[in-house]
Amino acid sequence: MERVDHLAHERNKSEFDVDAMKIVWAGSPHAFELSDRISKLVASDPGFRKDNRTMLSRKDLFKNTLRKAAYAWKTIVDLHLSEEEAAKLRFYVDEPAYTDLHWGMFVPAIKGQGTDEQQQKWLPLAYKMQIIGCYAQTELGHGSNVQGLETTATFDPQTDEFIIHSPTLTSSKWWPGGLGKVATHAIAYARLIVGGRDYGVNGFIVQLRSLEDHSPLPGITVGDIGMKFGNGAYNTMDNGVLQFDHVRIPRDQMLMRVSQVTREGKYKQSDVPRQLVYGTMVYVRQTIVADASCALSRAVCIATRYSAVRRQFGSQNGGPETQVIDYKTQQSRLFPLLASAYAFRFIGEWLKWLYTDVTQRLQANDFSTLPEAHACTAGLKSLTTTATADGIEECRKLCGGHGYLCSSGLPELFAVYVPACTYEGDNTVLLLQVARFLMKTVSQLGVKKPVGTIGYMTRVDHLMQCRCGVQRAEDWLNPSALLEAFEARAARMSVACAQNLSNFDNPEEGFAELSADLVEAAVAHCQLIIVSKFIEKLQQEIPGKGVKQQLEVLCNIYTLFLLHKHQGDFLSTGCITPKHASLANDQLRSLYSQVRPNAIALVDAFNYTDHFLGSILGCYDGNVYPKLYEAAWEDPLNDSVVPDGYHQYIRPLLKQQIRTARL
Amino acid sequence: MERVDHLAHERNKSEFDVDAMKIVWAGSPHAFELSDRISKLVASDPGFRKDNRTMLSRKDLFKNTLRKAAYAWKTIVDLHLSEEEAAKLRFYVDEPAYTDLHWGMFVPAIKGQGTDEQQQKWLPLAYKMQIIGCYAQTELGHGSNVQGLETTATFDPQTDEFIIHSPTLTSSKWWPGGLGKVATHAIAYARLIVGGRDYGVNGFIVQLRSLEDHSPLPGITVGDIGMKFGNGAYNTMDNGVLQFDHVRIPRDQMLMRVSQVTREGKYKQSDVPRQLVYGTMVYVRQTIVADASCALSRAVCIATRYSAVRRQFGSQNGGPETQVIDYKTQQSRLFPLLASAYAFRFIGEWLKWLYTDVTQRLQANDFSTLPEAHACTAGLKSLTTTATADGIEECRKLCGGHGYLCSSGLPELFAVYVPACTYEGDNTVLLLQVARFLMKTVSQLGVKKPVGTIGYMTRVDHLMQCRCGVQRAEDWLNPSALLEAFEARAARMSVACAQNLSNFDNPEEGFAELSADLVEAAVAHCQLIIVSKFIEKLQQEIPGKGVKQQLEVLCNIYTLFLLHKHQGDFLSTGCITPKHASLANDQLRSLYSQVRPNAIALVDAFNYTDHFLGSILGCYDGNVYPKLYEAAWEDPLNDSVVPDGYHQYIRPLLKQQIRTARL
Ligand SMILES: Cc1cc2nc3c(=O)[nH]c(=O)nc-3n(C[C@H](O)[C@H](O)[C@H](O)COP(=O)(O)OP(=O)(O)OC[C@H]3O[C@@H](n4cnc5c(N)ncnc54)[C@H](O)[C@@H]3O)c2cc1C
Ligand SMILES: Cc1cc2nc3c(=O)[nH]c(=O)nc-3n(C[C@H](O)[C@H](O)[C@H](O)COP(=O)(O)OP(=O)(O)OC[C@H]3O[C@@H](n4cnc5c(N)ncnc54)[C@H](O)[C@@H]3O)c2cc1C
Repeated sequence: MERVDHLAHERNKSEFDVDAMKIVWAGSPHAFELSDRISKLVASDPGFRKDNRTMLSRKDLFKNTLRKAAYAWKTIVDLHLSEEEAAKLRFYVDEPAYTDLHWGMFVPAIKGQGTDEQQQKWLPLAYKMQIIGCYAQTELGHGSNVQGLETTATFDPQTDEFIIHSPTLTSSKWWPGGLGKVATHAIAYARLIVGGRDYGVNGFIVQLRSLEDHSPLPGITVGDIGMKFGNGAYNTMDNGVLQFDHVRIPRDQMLMRVSQVTREGKYKQSDVPRQLVYGTMVYVRQTIVADASCALSRAVCIATRYSAVRRQFGSQNGGPETQVIDYKTQQSRLFPLLASAYAFRFIGEWLKWLYTDVTQRLQANDFSTLPEAHACTAGLKSLTTTATADGIEECRKLCGGHGYLCSSGLPELFAVYVPACTYEGDNTVLLLQVARFLMKTVSQLGVKKPVGTIGYMTRVDHLMQCRCGVQRAEDWLNPSALLEAFEARAARMSVACAQNLSNFDNPEEGFAELSADLVEAAVAHCQLIIVSKFIEKLQQEIPGKGVKQQLEVLCNIYTLFLLHKHQGDFLSTGCITPKHASLANDQLRSLYSQVRPNAIALVDAFNYTDHFLGSILGCYDGNVYPKLYEAAWEDPLNDSVVPDGYHQYIRPLLKQQIRTARL
Repeated sequence: MERVDHLAHERNKSEFDVDAMKIVWAGSPHAFELSDRISKLVASDPGFRKDNRTMLSRKDLFKNTLRKAAYAWKTIVDLHLSEEEAAKLRFYVDEPAYTDLHWGMFVPAIKGQGTDEQQQKWLPLAYKMQIIGCYAQTELGHGSNVQGLETTATFDPQTDEFIIHSPTLTSSKWWPGGLGKVATHAIAYARLIVGGRDYGVNGFIVQLRSLEDHSPLPGITVGDIGMKFGNGAYNTMDNGVLQFDHVRIPRDQMLMRVSQVTREGKYKQSDVPRQLVYGTMVYVRQTIVADASCALSRAVCIATRYSAVRRQFGSQNGGPETQVIDYKTQQSRLFPLLASAYAFRFIGEWLKWLYTDVTQRLQANDFSTLPEAHACTAGLKSLTTTATADGIEECRKLCGGHGYLCSSGLPELFAVYVPACTYEGDNTVLLLQVARFLMKTVSQLGVKKPVGTIGYMTRVDHLMQCRCGVQRAEDWLNPSALLEAFEARAARMSVACAQNLSNFDNPEEGFAELSADLVEAAVAHCQLIIVSKFIEKLQQEIPGKGVKQQLEVLCNIYTLFLLHKHQGDFLSTGCITPKHASLANDQLRSLYSQVRPNAIALVDAFNYTDHFLGSILGCYDGNVYPKLYEAAWEDPLNDSVVPDGYHQYIRPLLKQQIRTARL
């Protein structure tokens, strides 16, 4: 295949220092170096090939994932990779596997909820992978409502054990990744029953499989829950089903950092604050937001490069046709997603800071910012994952017919991504939590000073009556005009909801009745957070020729795109007038023209290898057509020219012998 | 498994005659009887099983589709089914196959574009399936821009043949369904070259494979283009790639109804009007709209039933938890989709009428309504397919985690549906065509009287300044208030675009620059069409207790939901005030409560068999959990308790032998 860079003309157009932007995207020179090195290491090792993934049967796919997970571990051990490097390696292997749950949920749960002794006992085993753990919370009948879980853990004072049991079909554990075929241990959540009394849901370390021959231990029924959305995608993971039939575990396998059961069968709270759990939640959700920017930027990278390669219509005098990226409709769908990818990247970075801040406060017994941090991360998880799922699918559509091919990479990216809208908190349920927090904040105004991301509510009087000062389209480039419009919208929507709520005698009924409006207010609040943190980011020094200018353009696109999309909110609350909205739209159009010459360089800045992207449409050199053509012939259906089944099922039709055919 | 109707309490709540609604949904008693009978026939025949589809490897899947297509044909022949019955049977088999293109594109293309002699020669062969045809238009490099196709058909006067040739890689045919492995013939589109002159794109009947042994004929390179989105889904179809190396066909295999090449090599137009092509387009798009209502209603049926089964939170004093369908957030996401399914059903029915009307006019040489009909079907195709694709995914999310399982049926439904947004006209490209029509209409106001669905533009002066008369929430139930608001919005958006366009010296440049706004105006116009036809439908007599009332509720939900979603349009054009918008929202909430007790019955009215739905979450009896549990064990991964790969890839980790493992 020829080695020409079909996108060189695009790269030459760019008006900023791409290498400097790469560092901004990565977060620091160190982070860039790490990602760059490890992603290339993975890309160059044929052991990590993934281009055939969507063609494999479930069994072959799964076995191949087992191989890759072991191979990744071997690489980590052989190369003496640090923890940071190992995590990056797993990330760039880019295949959901039981190891995700082992490192991402099992280990952190022991760290967060285990006592010091429990940590000393279990963590070394887990770190060396002498045991493999999963996180078994969800049941067939209960996901969102964790307090409704039915599995029981009954203390037997006679033997000093807990008896773990699944009393009903709906109490079967259902969904835990790694559970189906691999995990030797689980953190299983169950209702703690001591002396006939129900103390609610707690976590227990339960061994599931023999460490000798991997067979399930007595009383354990375990299996895979079957195929999930898409080819390849999450089918590499053995999400599992699990039933306990009076399984006994020693008392010291209840995770006892926060509450304990003594030898005598006494239930006690420890003096460790329960709020610690929220710290872990902030951590997990921060990683989900970071993943969102990663998934969205991959899709955007593919759609942007292909939109510059693809030409359709507009040939003049036999010259080349128009690159589809030059159509304003294409731009108005694509560029806001490009801007969103950057916006989510920066909010993810900020959430990392927030996590550190929260942790330090918790250690100092300062719980004052927790509710705000909790609402903020819940809302941002919801907002970024929804936008990313929708954005990936939009990118697929932006690629026309070819986006529907697995070789475009987009179908698998979508299928593997969408559950992020559901796990770690269903996105609607999370927004309702944000709404509750907002209503509480409003009801306490004057009594309790709003802090952090809800701080703007201290200026609620001003925000309820301020008027937008924009007079020309360019005025919309002014960060304070943007910020005030978003603050006013969020404040007014919250206050309106609070007022409507006050018309109900029963506040809970009111909340239920108005919940769809409350969700909209929550969205407005969360969008404001992203906008304001993007703007804050740009108040810093950012080195590199033209880098800051490009980011300003993206920030404005992100903000004005939201303003246009949610015009109804801004207009109905009177934050802006139709004239302002129209000026914003004019400004948006001109921003699209500004970003156009830099589009390819802006996705190059993600520094994704072709291996990681896994997309012919998105390949770096833009040499799309020959690669598509070559890839087609790899499909197993092309093994033979005349397909299997011709003699039984096609020939009888053509030969008019269908009546006597055996089908 | 127990045989209890877990949804009986829901069915008992309903306030209308479900059987009468079934007939309204089907369109007529005859249509109902036909669908009911054929769907049950398919459902009861194990030869049409599809529950294992998502687990099969590509090759097995494809072979199984070949079997089913032959089996369907055998059933049709054995049972002497009529054409109408045969089409329904293929529909309820519910598996994309080469037969879709044979019956849906190949046969109609010959009918529409072939001369009488050509029809006499080819149609009998096609009707008996002695030949199998596909529709080969799209190429690797050109889809939307049909005029840019590169394949050539050069007339050779010496031999009285055309030489079909693929001059470049990008001229390879790419995407045609049935082409990859099955079709014996294609309608191939190619540039007609006669005497060195290029007469543009025409259709040619080309034999691809031997009728004796199915091997490709000399000069033909053909294969499958590989895996597409999702498991099962469209992977049952052999979308193909095809290259011609100077393939010769007789002159009479050019489709010559509209233009001809004579023995002497003269190119001639026949006296058959070219506009006939548009008639076919209207037909095809009408079927796509009908498919949209079908796909959306399936998803809605699944999500509605499961939302009534699923309980989460809200248990009081140990009683049952709340059915998630009772949450207002769930309702505000689900019920507008239920209403959309009905709206699309009725607009589909109306489009059938439009097709008949257009055909009759064409036969009478009356082309006056063609541009309007063309714009209208283009827009409705775009609108309904986009809303359906998004709606299916929303239904999947409404099912929480379990919606992500293939056994929910929703992943496959989504994956198989989404290309409808791209084929038969990319949805954005189509909306731009609608926008062009709107701008032309506006520019000719006063000169040419707008007809049909654009007729409201005759009242543009009124619509530009009318004021919404709504004063209480209930006033929004008034059809004329709704209609006027939607007409005013559509008219004002079109006029605003036209005014902005007039600021450009070059109208084409203006159109390009403003195209994103133009697309929004086109959407507003098309939504108005759906709303107005729904309202018209309700002006008819509709028999059955409570049926009409339910449809009125759905019509109002559909309309007010759109109004809320596009509030920005209505407010920015001054069609309504924030107060009106807020009243509309209040009314919407109360409509949700009205539809709630009827929700299950309203999806029962679709009369889908469990076989057709293909979803455990949507099964008629609501006995979801035992069925999910049973289905899990069918996954091939559960064939063995200890997974294949344990010894090579898991044990070495656990036993700390990774360094020496062979991976
Ligand atoms: C790919 C994947 C991997 C997973 N991995 C794990 C794992 O490793 N370990 C584990 O324990 N679990 C895992 N899960 C389970 C996951 O955590 C749950 O699916 C998730 O919490 C959502 O819960 P649910 O499925 O019960 O949804 P439901 O709560 O049943 O949601 C159904 C619908 O009800 C609505 N709803 C629910 N409650 C309310 C309310 N109060 N108000 C308004 N609306 C409401 C929701 O918005 C949604 O529309 C996984 C799930 C998936 C899809
Ligand atoms: C499942 C499937 C089945 C198919 N079956 C067949 C078949 O049987 N026979 C057959 O011949 N073909 C078939 N096709 C091909 C299909 O008809 C084309 O994919 C479709 O016409 C879209 O064209 P494209 O892929 O070239 O998209 P493109 O035109 O390349 O679209 C890419 C992007 O460019 C944008 N764009 C393009 N032109 C413009 C413009 N003028 N202004 C603004 N934006 C523009 C689009 O909106 C889109 O975002 C099939 C495709 C699929 C996915």
